[in-house]
Formats: sequence, structure tokens, C-alpha cells
Amino acid sequence: MTQTQSTARHRVVIIGSGFGGLFAAKKLKRADADVTVIARTSYHLFQPLLYQVATGVLSSGEVAPATREVLARQKNTSVLLGDVTDIDLDNRVVTSRVAGRVMHTPYDSLIVAAGSGQSYFGNDRFATFAPGMKSIDDALELRARIFGAFEMAELSDDPAEIQRLMTFVVVGAGPTGVEMAGQIAELAHRTLRRDFRKIDTTKTRILLLDGAPRILATFREKTAVKAAARLAKIGVEIRTGAMVTDMDATGITVRHEDGSEERVESTCKVWAAGVQASPLGRQLGEKAGADVDRAGRVAVNPDLTLPGHPEVFVVGDLAALALPGVAQVAIQGGKFAAGRINDRLKGKESDRAFSKPFHYFDKGDMATISRFSAIAEIGRFTFSGFVGWLLWLCVHLVYLTGFKSKVTTLVHWTVSFVGRGRSERVITEQQEHARMALEVLHEEHEHGDEPPPAESRRDSEVVADRAR
Amino acid sequence: MTQTQSTARHRVVIIGSGFGGLFAAKKLKRADADVTVIARTSYHLFQPLLYQVATGVLSSGEVAPATREVLARQKNTSVLLGDVTDIDLDNRVVTSRVAGRVMHTPYDSLIVAAGSGQSYFGNDRFATFAPGMKSIDDALELRARIFGAFEMAELSDDPAEIQRLMTFVVVGAGPTGVEMAGQIAELAHRTLRRDFRKIDTTKTRILLLDGAPRILATFREKTAVKAAARLAKIGVEIRTGAMVTDMDATGITVRHEDGSEERVESTCKVWAAGVQASPLGRQLGEKAGADVDRAGRVAVNPDLTLPGHPEVFVVGDLAALALPGVAQVAIQGGKFAAGRINDRLKGKESDRAFSKPFHYFDKGDMATISRFSAIAEIGRFTFSGFVGWLLWLCVHLVYLTGFKSKVTTLVHWTVSFVGRGRSERVITEQQEHARMALEVLHEEHEHGDEPPPAESRRDSEVVADRAR
Repeated sequence: MTQTQSTARHRVVIIGSGFGGLFAAKKLKRADADVTVIARTSYHLFQPLLYQVATGVLSSGEVAPATREVLARQKNTSVLLGDVTDIDLDNRVVTSRVAGRVMHTPYDSLIVAAGSGQSYFGNDRFATFAPGMKSIDDALELRARIFGAFEMAELSDDPAEIQRLMTFVVVGAGPTGVEMAGQIAELAHRTLRRDFRKIDTTKTRILLLDGAPRILATFREKTAVKAAARLAKIGVEIRTGAMVTDMDATGITVRHEDGSEERVESTCKVWAAGVQASPLGRQLGEKAGADVDRAGRVAVNPDLTLPGHPEVFVVGDLAALALPGVAQVAIQGGKFAAGRINDRLKGKESDRAFSKPFHYFDKGDMATISRFSAIAEIGRFTFSGFVGWLLWLCVHLVYLTGFKSKVTTLVHWTVSFVGRGRSERVITEQQEHARMALEVLHEEHEHGDEPPPAESRRDSEVVADRAR
Repeated sequence: MTQTQSTARHRVVIIGSGFGGLFAAKKLKRADADVTVIARTSYHLFQPLLYQVATGVLSSGEVAPATREVLARQKNTSVLLGDVTDIDLDNRVVTSRVAGRVMHTPYDSLIVAAGSGQSYFGNDRFATFAPGMKSIDDALELRARIFGAFEMAELSDDPAEIQRLMTFVVVGAGPTGVEMAGQIAELAHRTLRRDFRKIDTTKTRILLLDGAPRILATFREKTAVKAAARLAKIGVEIRTGAMVTDMDATGITVRHEDGSEERVESTCKVWAAGVQASPLGRQLGEKAGADVDRAGRVAVNPDLTLPGHPEVFVVGDLAALALPGVAQVAIQGGKFAAGRINDRLKGKESDRAFSKPFHYFDKGDMATISRFSAIAEIGRFTFSGFVGWLLWLCVHLVYLTGFKSKVTTLVHWTVSFVGRGRSERVITEQQEHARMALEVLHEEHEHGDEPPPAESRRDSEVVADRAR
């Protein structure tokens, strides 16, 4: 592969290193083109396993291999770190920024796979109290909050505070919310059972809320019922038809279907409720005169191209298709777009406004509930329990990118599923300080700092009180 | 183990969950006492492998198991998260703080194993530019800076800037500095070789500085010479007799023995030069009227007790002993102190001012230089090269706490040593933003943000310029 690179060589730019971007890049491996992947993070994120990073099963490296390493042997492909701020459709230049540096990258073909972030449905201040589940930062922050809540409960001797610290609320009962709730339940009821002396972690409350009438709306009702039964069995309380109306450092307010409001005291909340497409969706829509839906996704032609721009493909969460926001949609979209570019480069297809349309092949969907128990829908078939879990295990091992992750991941899974261990539990001091700032924000539960008299101190086991 | 805990039961408090604290706690496993470990972090840190977290070999969980998990089955022991701010020697109460909460923990026996932090020898502002190697936060920050430097170099087309980003300076040539320099060299020359397209990572410069006349001052000269030769071979430039006199975001100023000053342009600096004992050393010294040395370590009796306080033991880096600041000194000190408490509880030894003195058994010292190459000194014997490395491997596998870490660590080591991989390379966005702030601080190398005219943009591969 020592081709001399002339400036006349076709330039493909891919925005994003998620499922859409990475699989598009891989599909262009043999293309006679210079491929550039521009992404905001240096890693490809295997988002479906992020909940295991948050709950201490896997390390960040296991779900987030360096994109550069994944594509190292693909000589025609460069990886650039950068947050794309502008796409100049007329001059065909992508502008990105990182660490005060601005880059301009020209393209002949563009694949926009910028994905989506968390949506708080207009209540962005909720983000402080309930981190989402979209990035490694989110997962590490949640890990610190989940394990930190138990640490703080162990230090407290105020029953109300202990109750609040040991109540976890997961908002959103799609696959991510279900998996998160299930993992917190396992953590509390199994993993941490022997770790604490004052608190009994098996008394932990886990609430799973959703505004919809049932959990797992994208699954069949039969499957969802099975999942709900299993969740109830491992100690997750499900509240459907429940809308979050307010939130602060110590709790959450929920409005039920009958209009009644309920306040749940809870320190650690997780937001798994909605997504909002990258701002690039709106930008592309405005520039190309294409529709943008409420979730910020841009309307595309049946071949995933941007209206009026056959050289620009939009794939994954950013494209307004009547498809779920799952990895397979992004993977197949990315591969499809790359395939069209390959065809054009080989002269098999002209650069027309409309080419072969994209068809999504539904390979099914799955979610783990607890160890040895998962639900899976593949075609007309539904699997649950142990068989579903084995399916889940195989599919995830096959899809995990890179050999290294697979082996250590298998080891981590073995110790977590067969044993009780969670070896990835580190809370950084930075996170501890952030949590402290959050707690200090909320003063309603604070009392004096006065140490008790020496006598009573000697008599008590451990005397805890709050700072002024 | 269902003994009822009466208030008359002996209370042992251990401050710190490092080597001294953890091994003291383990030694008290069968003691008829309530043992409480109070530590600032929720993990026990295996500091000798921290450099592997910084260079992407190991995950944080592998070198930092949760203290609580390590001690889970030790029923007489509680673990409390807290930063100890005061030790009341008269009333025998330890005060600690965490997240705005203040705890008072009374003790009958106390083991202070609070360890040490990085010392910048009075130049604390250096900390911003050259993180130390004392905590998981340090290691993750360095990881982000090391991998981030290569990412930024790939984006640049200013030769001076690329040179600066690809020059790494390690200050301090003790075992930690030597291991760090060796790992950065391996990373640049081996691991990342195929990952980049514009930069050639094998051109990376790694400088290892020390004010002393030779590297590895605690090792024999013969061993240090071998290590220096191996380091030179893998591309590390050694500068001995070199004092750091100044530092900023883009470089470091060094004064050589002949009085000449040299400015080295370097973005990523690592500080492995000195340690400063926890402030608790000075506090104990003042309260007990004991001497405190320049490194903040408090003078202790031959039995490691604080003068005038036979119930207070000081172990590890915090005790002013004529011993090196290595894990073995802390481990043996912690075990010794716990052993004395065990003896007293069994009535074998009275609570006298002076009991059996502590004797350190030197098991030797070792440091890895590169994969398959390490130096080790055990008794009269010196090992180097592959034999030294095998010794290093065995010793570290044996000492790593907990079964889980051992298996995944072995897998990570296999892929790193036999293959080229570094699977733990995640840079969080939080760190990216911090790095950005640091870069923006330094404006001297910035030029305009004007995009080039459209024509020239289309002709260039990738056009990079700096933000205003």
C-alpha cells in the first residue's frame, strides 16, 4: 500500500467514531480514497455496554478502544480528534475544533455519523442531578455516584439520609434503563452484601420510571411482561405512566397518570429517558433546506443522502428514519453509505441525486436483566431467561471490537457473573470533589459541626455529624 | 464470628489504605478488636504499577481494588471514607471529613499510615505542568496528557509545535521515573508506531532528568549502569546532574552541573522527583513534641510508636526512619504495628513506652525498564535483563491484591508484552477540557483563525490553523 497520494485522490470525511462512523470507515478499507475520521473523542464507544462501566463490571478501555488503534492497519484512513462545528456544503469543507485549534478538512464525499446526546426534554438543569448514559464521562460519573452513595450511607446515622442515599431512581425504561436498574439491583443485593458494616445493602430501593404505559416500548408486550416480572423478582420497583416533573440534589418529583404527584427522596438518579441528535442535524437541515424533527434529526433521501447533496450521507441517530436508535441501524447505515461511495469510486454508480435505497435488516434486539437472564427478540422468536442471556453473551462478544477487549471482558464477566466481584470500582478524587460540591449545594439537611463532649465520644462507636 | 460488640471492646483505628494501612488491617484479622480503616480514597492503591495505568497498559481497577472489597470478609473491620484532618492525642479521637460531613472516630490504638504526596520542593506551581505519580487521578491525568500529546501532534503542521508535543520530560530518575520513561519509550517506538499518519512516533524524544550524579540512586552503581544502558538503547536520553529551575505549559528549564541553563521545549512533563509526607506528620510532631524532618516525616521510637504515645504507631512514608520510601517498608511497618497490638490484646506485652524494636528486612528492590527487561537487587545478588524481568513479573503477580486483578492483569500484560496493544487508553472529555484550558493559557504560539480561501482549501489535504 505505497500508493503516492495525489491531490486528485477522492477524499472521504466521516464525522463520528460511533457505530455508524467506524463501520463506514472499515467498509472503505480497500477504497482508492483518502478517508479521514473526525471525532470528538479518541475512542469508539460500545454504548450498549456502558451500563457495565457505570456499575463497576468493565473498565473504560474495554468498552472504548482507541479509534486510532482499531483503524491502525487501514493505511488509507486517518483519525483526527476534533469537535465538528461547521459543515460548509458549498465549498465541501468540515470545520472542527480541539484544544483551541481549528481544523478545516475538505471532502469529496461526506458521511455524517455524529450521533446523539442525552435529551432532558427541555429540563437541562436535570443533567446536574441525573447524569445520562451517552459517554465514558457519564459512565464514570455514575460509577462514582452509585458507589459513593453506599459509602456515604455507611458514614451516616440519620435514617432518612441513609434511606435517601440507598434509593436509586432510573428514569426511562428502554433497554438502557432496564439494564442499569438490573445492574444496580445485582450490585446492592449480591456484590456489596458483605462489604459494609452499618448499612444493609440488600435493603436498597431501585425505582425504574417511565412515562409510557409499559417498560421496553420497542419490544413486544409479551417480552416486556417477562422482563418486568424478572425485574420485580430481583427487587426493582417499576412505575409506568410516571412523568418526572422536578428534580434536585436529594430527590425527584413524579406525576402519575391519575394526576397525583409523588416526591421520592433519592440522592443518585440516572437519566436514560431520551436522546437529542447532535446539533449538526439542525445545521445540515438549515443549510440544505431539509426538514428537522423534534429530536433534531434531519430528513434524508431513501439512499441516506442529504436532499440536494448526493455527496453527503447522514447515518445513525442523526437521520430522521422511522427506525429505532440502536447500534444496528447505525452500523448498517454506515456500511450502506460507504458501499455507495465504493460503488461510485468504481464507476458502478453515477453521482445521481437518487441511488439504491437503504433497507434496514432488523437483526433483533436484546437487553440483560440480571446475570444469567436476558430478553431477546430475533425475527419472530422471543427468548428470555438463561437462553436469552447466552444469546446476549455471544452477540456482545462477537461485536466487541478488538481481541484484547474480548479476553479481559470475558474474565471480568466471569468474575462478575460466576463470582460476585466488580473489580472496576474506582472513584477518582476529582469526582469526589464534584460530588462534595453538589452535596454542599444542598444545605437543608445540614446541622452543626460541634464535636460531642469527650466522654460521649469515647462511648460511641463512631459519631457522625454534618459540616456547617 | 457473631460476637456481640460491647463498648468495652478494644478499638483500633488505622489511617490510610495504602500498603501500611492495608497490611496492618489484615494482620488484625483475628484480633478481638473493632478495627476501623479511615482513608481518603475508597481504593487501596498498588502504587508501583501506577505508571502502567498512565501509559495505557492497565485499568484503574487493576491497580486499585476497593479497600472495602479486599477487607469484606474480615468481620471485625470497617472501612470509612474520609480525609483525616485532626488527631486528638489526648482524647484519642480521629476527625475526618468527606463531602461536607465531619466524622469523629475514637480509638484505643491508632496506626497512622497516611503516606506521602508529591513534593515539588517549594515550586508548587510546577504541579499544573507536570503531574506527579501518587494517585489514580495523577495516572489518569498523565494518561490523557501522554496520548493527548500525540493526538495534538497529528493535528499540527507547525514543526516546532510537533517537536514540542513529541518531547516528553520525566523529572526524577528513581524507580518510578525510570519505569515511566521506559514505558513512554515503548509506547512511542512500538505501540503507537502504526497508529498515526502524519507524525512518526518513533521520532519521539524522551528525556529523563535527575539532579543526582546518576540514575537509580538507591540501587548499586553496577545495576544503575546496566539500567542506563538499556534505557539509552530504547531511546531514553538521560541527563544527570540536571536541576529543574523553571517550567511552563510549553517547556522546562534545566540547570546543569557546570552552571549552564538549558530550555527544553516540551508539552508533557511528568514529576517523579520527590515526596512530601502527609501533613499529619507535622501535626503529630507538634502535638507529641517529636521532631519532624524536612520531608514532613515524624520521628518515632524504635518500636514505631509516637514519643510519649505507646498507643500510636506511625508506619510507612510518614515515619522518619533511615529507610527508603518503598512498599516493603510500609508493609512490614504496618504488620509490625498490628503485631504489637495483637500482642498487647493477648496480654503478651504490656503497654510500655518501649517494646520490641522494628527491624526492616530488605527483600530487595526492582524496576522494569522495558518489556522483557528489568533490574532487581535481592540480597547480594543483582539480576538484569530477562531474568530480572521474570522476577519482577512473579513478585508483582504475587503481591497484586485479589484474584480478579491477577487474571485480567495477566491478560493485559500478555497483550502488552507479547503483542503491541495498550487497551486502556481512554481520555475523558473532562480531561480534554482541562488540557484545552491549559493550552489556551499559553498564547505565545497562537496565530489567526482565518480560514484559507476556498481554492487553496480544496487543494490541501488538511489545513490546520490555531484559534484566536
